[in-house]
Amino acid sequence: MIREAAEGDVEVLIELINELARFERSADSVMIDRDLLHAALFDGSPNVFTHVAEEDGNILGMAIWFLNFSTWTGRNGIYLEDLYVRPEARGRGVGLALISELASIAHRSGYGRVEWSVLDWNEEALRFYRSLGAVAMDEWTGYRLAGPALADLAGRGPSRRMI
Amino acid sequence: MIREAAEGDVEVLIELINELARFERSADSVMIDRDLLHAALFDGSPNVFTHVAEEDGNILGMAIWFLNFSTWTGRNGIYLEDLYVRPEARGRGVGLALISELASIAHRSGYGRVEWSVLDWNEEALRFYRSLGAVAMDEWTGYRLAGPALADLAGRGPSRRMI
Repeated sequence: MIREAAEGDVEVLIELINELARFERSADSVMIDRDLLHAALFDGSPNVFTHVAEEDGNILGMAIWFLNFSTWTGRNGIYLEDLYVRPEARGRGVGLALISELASIAHRSGYGRVEWSVLDWNEEALRFYRSLGAVAMDEWTGYRLAGPALADLAGRGPSRRMI
Repeated sequence: MIREAAEGDVEVLIELINELARFERSADSVMIDRDLLHAALFDGSPNVFTHVAEEDGNILGMAIWFLNFSTWTGRNGIYLEDLYVRPEARGRGVGLALISELASIAHRSGYGRVEWSVLDWNEEALRFYRSLGAVAMDEWTGYRLAGPALADLAGRGPSRRMI
């Protein structure tokens, strides 16, 4: 069954996030903890959403997503931040069920797109995504400003000066 | 001066969005109109934000952004959807002023990142972004599911079936 995540799922979601990060060779990058995840998903007006695939009370996989926005379409879309299925549950359509649920939400909400990013060496994921008819945005490269470079630029912030 | 966009700016923002799309060789992809942009920026609880650079009542450039979320940091970040400076205003630090403002918002809000995507052939933009200390997320490729492929997957939606 695919359902929205509930507060009681936070612990297992943290487990899945860490499993995914290990798979993506970035275990050291995980700073999230139960409090941060709970706040993101359930406090105030959450802007992050999670669906889980459950069977007999066990969480087999998760999709963590938020709304993005396209200035060309003028509409929100769904950005799938993390899709993860436990190794022992793979090959049974769990990933397909999760992403189909997001497609279905996008379709009925008038969002024109579901988007996500894939690691170039993740062949299995690439095959799966192409089989859905998803298109690679090859021409575009993501850029990230973080850490000292972000703090430095923030210090140059123009809030109080004319350009 | 960098300031948040106001309702009276919608007309000129549509103009800038179209200019940017022409520059990105995608003029035909622009479906947004004044109503859609107004709704996105000002109706209900907007989840899209715009800052503009203004001089003597003229809008020289804009930054359209929304909040994304990182499961690794457990925090929101700023995703810069569109940064655009009118050709006649380039080389005067307008783009730097706009992105510095976002860095400054990110910094004081506890968001760890400002992120965006760049077209591979946009050398001038690439040079500018690297000069800020932004890092290319080379290992990742964006994927998009839209149109018939999205509708098809939505039809397969698992909402009413067990996996």
